[in-house]
Amino acid sequence: MRDLILEKIKEYYLELLPFNKILGIDIDLLDYKTGEAITTFDMKNDLVGNSTIGILHGGVTASVIDLTGGLSALISCAKFHEKESLEVIAKKLTSSATIDMRVDYLRPGKGKSFVCKSRIIRAGSRIVVSKIDLFNEKEIRIATGTATYLIG
Amino acid sequence: MRDLILEKIKEYYLELLPFNKILGIDIDLLDYKTGEAITTFDMKNDLVGNSTIGILHGGVTASVIDLTGGLSALISCAKFHEKESLEVIAKKLTSSATIDMRVDYLRPGKGKSFVCKSRIIRAGSRIVVSKIDLFNEKEIRIATGTATYLIG
Amino acid sequence: MRDLILEKIKEYYLELLPFNKILGIDIDLLDYKTGEAITTFDMKNDLVGNSTIGILHGGVTASVIDLTGGLSALISCAKFHEKESLEVIAKKLTSSATIDMRVDYLRPGKGKSFVCKSRIIRAGSRIVVSKIDLFNEKEIRIATGTATYLIG
Amino acid sequence: MRDLILEKIKEYYLELLPFNKILGIDIDLLDYKTGEAITTFDMKNDLVGNSTIGILHGGVTASVIDLTGGLSALISCAKFHEKESLEVIAKKLTSSATIDMRVDYLRPGKGKSFVCKSRIIRAGSRIVVSKIDLFNEKEIRIATGTATYLIG
Repeated sequence: MRDLILEKIKEYYLELLPFNKILGIDIDLLDYKTGEAITTFDMKNDLVGNSTIGILHGGVTASVIDLTGGLSALISCAKFHEKESLEVIAKKLTSSATIDMRVDYLRPGKGKSFVCKSRIIRAGSRIVVSKIDLFNEKEIRIATGTATYLIG
Repeated sequence: MRDLILEKIKEYYLELLPFNKILGIDIDLLDYKTGEAITTFDMKNDLVGNSTIGILHGGVTASVIDLTGGLSALISCAKFHEKESLEVIAKKLTSSATIDMRVDYLRPGKGKSFVCKSRIIRAGSRIVVSKIDLFNEKEIRIATGTATYLIG
Repeated sequence: MRDLILEKIKEYYLELLPFNKILGIDIDLLDYKTGEAITTFDMKNDLVGNSTIGILHGGVTASVIDLTGGLSALISCAKFHEKESLEVIAKKLTSSATIDMRVDYLRPGKGKSFVCKSRIIRAGSRIVVSKIDLFNEKEIRIATGTATYLIG
Repeated sequence: MRDLILEKIKEYYLELLPFNKILGIDIDLLDYKTGEAITTFDMKNDLVGNSTIGILHGGVTASVIDLTGGLSALISCAKFHEKESLEVIAKKLTSSATIDMRVDYLRPGKGKSFVCKSRIIRAGSRIVVSKIDLFNEKEIRIATGTATYLIG
């Protein structure tokens, strides 16, 4: 059941959300036990926000931080309802949403590929708070963020 | 000169930043005196973040808040250096960057078209803080944000 | 009943919270209809955070922004439960809490007396978001903030 | 010289800032090399923000997060100017200030004594960003925050 839920979350994110396709997001890890999530994406011209130096658009950074932190929130939501039917869980998941987010842009978004890691720092029945970091392929941290989610 | 600078900012944003094209951003207002900026964009499938209810991806919302607040920061930067040459100003503009941002998602991002308005709440020689609001075509506020920029 | 609830909130804040007494907070307005709240306090030596120039400690500014926004959240909470008994409402109020807060320090905290104004920008059954501004007696805005509250 | 500067920062914080005395802050660590700072304080009635359950006022939490992160910023500032005279450095330090801060209240502020730890996540010549955590004596994390400072 747990694997099925994680598979559903993955499918939903990767197949059904058009903007995630634009970003070219892939999911490397969804840890049911801890709520950790890891996403990856490659640099491409569409994601550039400063043509002079070819770095990530700040909006791309914010988007990936929001969506990776959201994966942790969805895992947390699924765990809170794990005794319910898959149908009920699916409904809870799709009614979850970001409440607010802070993004800190620490360094210019240079890189060929990027890894975004999220972990849960508050796991309530209604509120989940994720801490998220974005790194490039040289393991340099480009940005960090904190996001608060309301779960269904 | 002022009109020329605003024209350069507009051209830079609309022609040279690939991700802004993906979002489909247009610029409706850049007010040199007050620093106010207004951008607009239309809903399209690529921007959807919840396929069930067809609303904006939270990353799109964050992106537009960041880039619209950034326009206010660029105007403020240009004003601080208005006695310099256009070349110097251009360099200052391209070296400006977002330091951090908070986004509050107030309502689901439903709509056919969207208007994002930014105004300056702190205009320093190094730091500019913008307050930004995103509305749909029914003038319902979908999100609000505050962003801090380091200007060149 | 409404007046009674507002009176209870006021009494709770002013009589029962020791740190509010340290700050010297008074409540000028609690608007049941809109959720607006206004608090005031005077400068005194205990609140100073920079002895060279005698300005407010950043922690005082953050404290007043949090507590004034919290008053709006409490009004919102009371409204959601207004058909319940006073006992139930009182319990809901005391179990409400700040989830997160952003404070922007716009200008040095100079002044003889200060006014803090909060209004609600999101009023959900579980989540309230307040926008808060702090002014000195010359109506200069010293700081602004946004805070998210979980209501009971 | 380095020890002298750290001593000056400590003296300034503990002796000259009245509100820090109200909070009862002590400084356990100021690491010149890494910028890490650790402060401690004990629970006392003056700091209570919820009389029913005797927990820290959210404003106290925010205050301690701001001031501890500020210590990291001051160390960073001192390092950037370490070749200048003590007089120049002192002036730079007192003209440093918080730009903005986010606080996440993760758990109720229960405890007998508290430890607040800050580390630097961005160390620029003008901008320092600190990540700060507040723990009680049982090493339970009560709150976390991120703050951006402008250094002189």
